[in-house]
Amino acid sequence: MPARIQIVENILSANDELAARNRAAFDRAGVLALNLMASPGAGKTSLILRTLEALRGRVRLGVIEGDLASSIDTDRARAAGIPAFQINTGGQCHLDAVMVQAAMHELPLAQLDVVIIENVGNLVCPIEFRLGSHLSVLIASIPEGDDKPYKYPSAYRGVQALVVNKVDLLPYVPFRMDYFREGVEALNPGLVTFPLSCRTGEGLAAWADWLVARVTENRSPAAH
Amino acid sequence: MPARIQIVENILSANDELAARNRAAFDRAGVLALNLMASPGAGKTSLILRTLEALRGRVRLGVIEGDLASSIDTDRARAAGIPAFQINTGGQCHLDAVMVQAAMHELPLAQLDVVIIENVGNLVCPIEFRLGSHLSVLIASIPEGDDKPYKYPSAYRGVQALVVNKVDLLPYVPFRMDYFREGVEALNPGLVTFPLSCRTGEGLAAWADWLVARVTENRSPAAH
Repeated sequence: MPARIQIVENILSANDELAARNRAAFDRAGVLALNLMASPGAGKTSLILRTLEALRGRVRLGVIEGDLASSIDTDRARAAGIPAFQINTGGQCHLDAVMVQAAMHELPLAQLDVVIIENVGNLVCPIEFRLGSHLSVLIASIPEGDDKPYKYPSAYRGVQALVVNKVDLLPYVPFRMDYFREGVEALNPGLVTFPLSCRTGEGLAAWADWLVARVTENRSPAAH
Repeated sequence: MPARIQIVENILSANDELAARNRAAFDRAGVLALNLMASPGAGKTSLILRTLEALRGRVRLGVIEGDLASSIDTDRARAAGIPAFQINTGGQCHLDAVMVQAAMHELPLAQLDVVIIENVGNLVCPIEFRLGSHLSVLIASIPEGDDKPYKYPSAYRGVQALVVNKVDLLPYVPFRMDYFREGVEALNPGLVTFPLSCRTGEGLAAWADWLVARVTENRSPAAH
């Protein structure tokens, strides 16, 4: 086996081990962890802020924010009253289990029901690195175009739910919803999908209800 | 030095050598090569097709298309009459000099003035790998949001021109142009910037004229 491939496999396998430990720590705290992935600007932080509003009084939310640089997203989350911790990857194109482990220690896990881990904006690299989350969710965005499932298949294959954000822009951009959905269905049959707009609020209730149901499942004794 | 860093440096240095050879081959053919980078769905292929229209009769354009999967972009380019070659990276999150070298052999370089190399849709990884191009151009897109220079600084630092696409969507999304421009200016002072819309055609003439001027410079004997 070529040396480079061996090394990549060793890195991935060390990451997987640590991810399993993160997952066990989330489980001990009774926290559902969600890995949120998307292209830059698809609306990850906007979805988190809208989800907080929708869940208030029902579910306690914490956030781990991943970015190459800046604390813009954490500032927005904290301003909205969410316990949030910023990871700056310093150029790395995805989060990994080590970074998430460090961030978990900074959050009051015992007082939370869900932690959303906002990955680096990237449709390629984050998919390959497990973080210890229970669920992976992808956000697609209407102005990105309807061909993304065909061009970035791995992003659509590895997730348990799909949010299609910015449906308020449908009148202004060319987007064939049938073509998009066919591409998704071929990669991830029956994938639960939430068309919505973080700007107008349209469609957010269905997403929030789905998330609350996952939290309730996670709280039940049979979950662990 | 840790083994992993050493290996990454070796890979980058081998890539740089090959990139220099690609550049020399472009120079021998009198072709200006352009590395076009952006997030998924920012409009790389749309810009190429609009550029072809604008340059027709003035400059002969060829295209190398990079995607994880599919030949959607090459099909669009060929349908528009552009000599085009598709690279499928098979999961790799960026193009590299080896891939471009292989693609160059498939294009009629002697009959071209410009080759646009459309990189994988990704704001992080493509920046680190030289391809042998003369110019790097980044496309930002209005619906991605105004905070992208702050979150993806390396993408904005390493380019010679910036296209800001989808200005037709400005009335429908929150985008503070001043905040965006301040972020760009801090990273890449004086960066030449083309606000435009591939959908409406607004602003494309200025971009096309700039590109024609670069081709003219490249043709002059002093260029090499």
